[in-house]
Amino acid sequence: MSSQAFELLILGCSSASPTAERNQTSQLLNIAERHFLIDCGEATQIQLRRFKARFQKIDHIFISHLHGDHFFGLPGYLSSMHLLGRQQELTIYAPKELKQVLDVIHEVSETKLSYPVKWHFTDNKKQELLFEDDKVQVYSFPLKHRIYCTGFLFKEKPYQRKIDKFLLEKHGVSTADIHLLRDGFDVTNDKGEKVLNKAVTLDPPKPRTYAYCSDTIYDETLIQFIKDADLLYHESTFLDDKIDRAKITFHSTAKQAANIAKLSSAKKLLLGHFSARYGNLDQFVVEAKEVFDNCALAIEGKVIQVEHSI
Amino acid sequence: MSSQAFELLILGCSSASPTAERNQTSQLLNIAERHFLIDCGEATQIQLRRFKARFQKIDHIFISHLHGDHFFGLPGYLSSMHLLGRQQELTIYAPKELKQVLDVIHEVSETKLSYPVKWHFTDNKKQELLFEDDKVQVYSFPLKHRIYCTGFLFKEKPYQRKIDKFLLEKHGVSTADIHLLRDGFDVTNDKGEKVLNKAVTLDPPKPRTYAYCSDTIYDETLIQFIKDADLLYHESTFLDDKIDRAKITFHSTAKQAANIAKLSSAKKLLLGHFSARYGNLDQFVVEAKEVFDNCALAIEGKVIQVEHSI
Repeated sequence: MSSQAFELLILGCSSASPTAERNQTSQLLNIAERHFLIDCGEATQIQLRRFKARFQKIDHIFISHLHGDHFFGLPGYLSSMHLLGRQQELTIYAPKELKQVLDVIHEVSETKLSYPVKWHFTDNKKQELLFEDDKVQVYSFPLKHRIYCTGFLFKEKPYQRKIDKFLLEKHGVSTADIHLLRDGFDVTNDKGEKVLNKAVTLDPPKPRTYAYCSDTIYDETLIQFIKDADLLYHESTFLDDKIDRAKITFHSTAKQAANIAKLSSAKKLLLGHFSARYGNLDQFVVEAKEVFDNCALAIEGKVIQVEHSI
Repeated sequence: MSSQAFELLILGCSSASPTAERNQTSQLLNIAERHFLIDCGEATQIQLRRFKARFQKIDHIFISHLHGDHFFGLPGYLSSMHLLGRQQELTIYAPKELKQVLDVIHEVSETKLSYPVKWHFTDNKKQELLFEDDKVQVYSFPLKHRIYCTGFLFKEKPYQRKIDKFLLEKHGVSTADIHLLRDGFDVTNDKGEKVLNKAVTLDPPKPRTYAYCSDTIYDETLIQFIKDADLLYHESTFLDDKIDRAKITFHSTAKQAANIAKLSSAKKLLLGHFSARYGNLDQFVVEAKEVFDNCALAIEGKVIQVEHSI
């Protein structure tokens, strides 16, 4: 339907403590060859190598909050890019205190990175446009966690309309008008007649969105920011048996994540940030499916192709 | 020969950049059930889990220097011990700037560790006794690297002499004198005769030592601190083909490590801190063996039992 990539690679899915099998939160999102790293738990750089991701292709890193399981992999990853001779600018979108941490680390290790780092300090009071180019927009939005935390929304920009060359010829429209048609305008043909855009173009695929809800308590106010996501990641640290613990620690259960998916009309739900207390994760899907059927586990190494909705 | 443990577990052996197969420097040393963590590269806590090491048993952490590949795993490891409810005091022996890094990290993540951390700031100008109890001593000593760096020497204290009960009875020595005999004193028997210690005791095993030479340029002045080690770890970032690069970066080659082993009369040499450029590591042993025969690679997961010399 579309040749443009929209692909998510899971690098880690464990919460606060990693286990021998599960690393801490990190994801790599490729939209139209823009490579976005989302959170960067310890050993993210090792996971990137393990899954043969292209290390130096990442130009934008999004850090949701400053609990260690979401950023302890960043100093090592930045350092390895430096050692590999990176020259290209890197932009980090994060709470401002992260810069303070990295500055101290670079000071004590006497490191001057080989590439420029541009900072965009996030604001967790409101929704904010962090990144935009001709194909993609990235927004942040507030999440309710123990400390300052944001989610991220990754959106494709609307696609251009598709030209039907056969109909173009049939209606006597000049190819010089293709750009106007792609942008949705009506045109005039070689006989001076008005030709409606719809008569010679086809609807393009719907733009896709990925909503990333990092650590958060169950909070319906976040729905306004993530409505109709083609893919929704929502943390599910606990199962239903620990719903009280979820509340105290400002985390969510699988069923609560499913509820947010349902209420926000998500197309697909991805569960992650699993507490180390759970060995087998099947029950997360079982409990979520009671509320929302199209859900899966964010197991590390898994690649999710985000589909266009119809 | 002795029931006292002296066992080294390799947790990581890569230099600056980790690879998919090799983590960064960290080792776990068990002497007589004192568990010492030596350096703490990224993902050390994951390696500890992977090799089923007893996470909370470690009460002493030694950090040689503040290049990230030797300490980026520390914040996560401290955090996981906290999350697991550790109460026991932990002592960190490290350059003083490490405290500054951890203080900032704990501040921004609003973390107050559940256990006390005691700091012992190392001094890389001279040899220094860092730790001592009834069985073990740990010293630091200066290393020549690009930044402030120390090595560590782990020493068993002398064993008590072994009592031969048959000879004790034969010479008419009272069992009340066993403590004196164990400490090497001569005693008087039940007839009032002097009994030489050697007549009723056996030589104990020789105390063992492990010398850890973290990042260092080839430097014969360090030999004075590590003489006669039963096990010597010496970094060998490069092979002989990169001897110039070793010099510029203040690292060593396998052959240089072997030379230090030979000149310091080490019993066994362990090579590690391999540059990520080398896939297969066999050549490190080949080149080291040209100078010093009893050598091995510090491959992760390897357990080395340190033997008593005769």
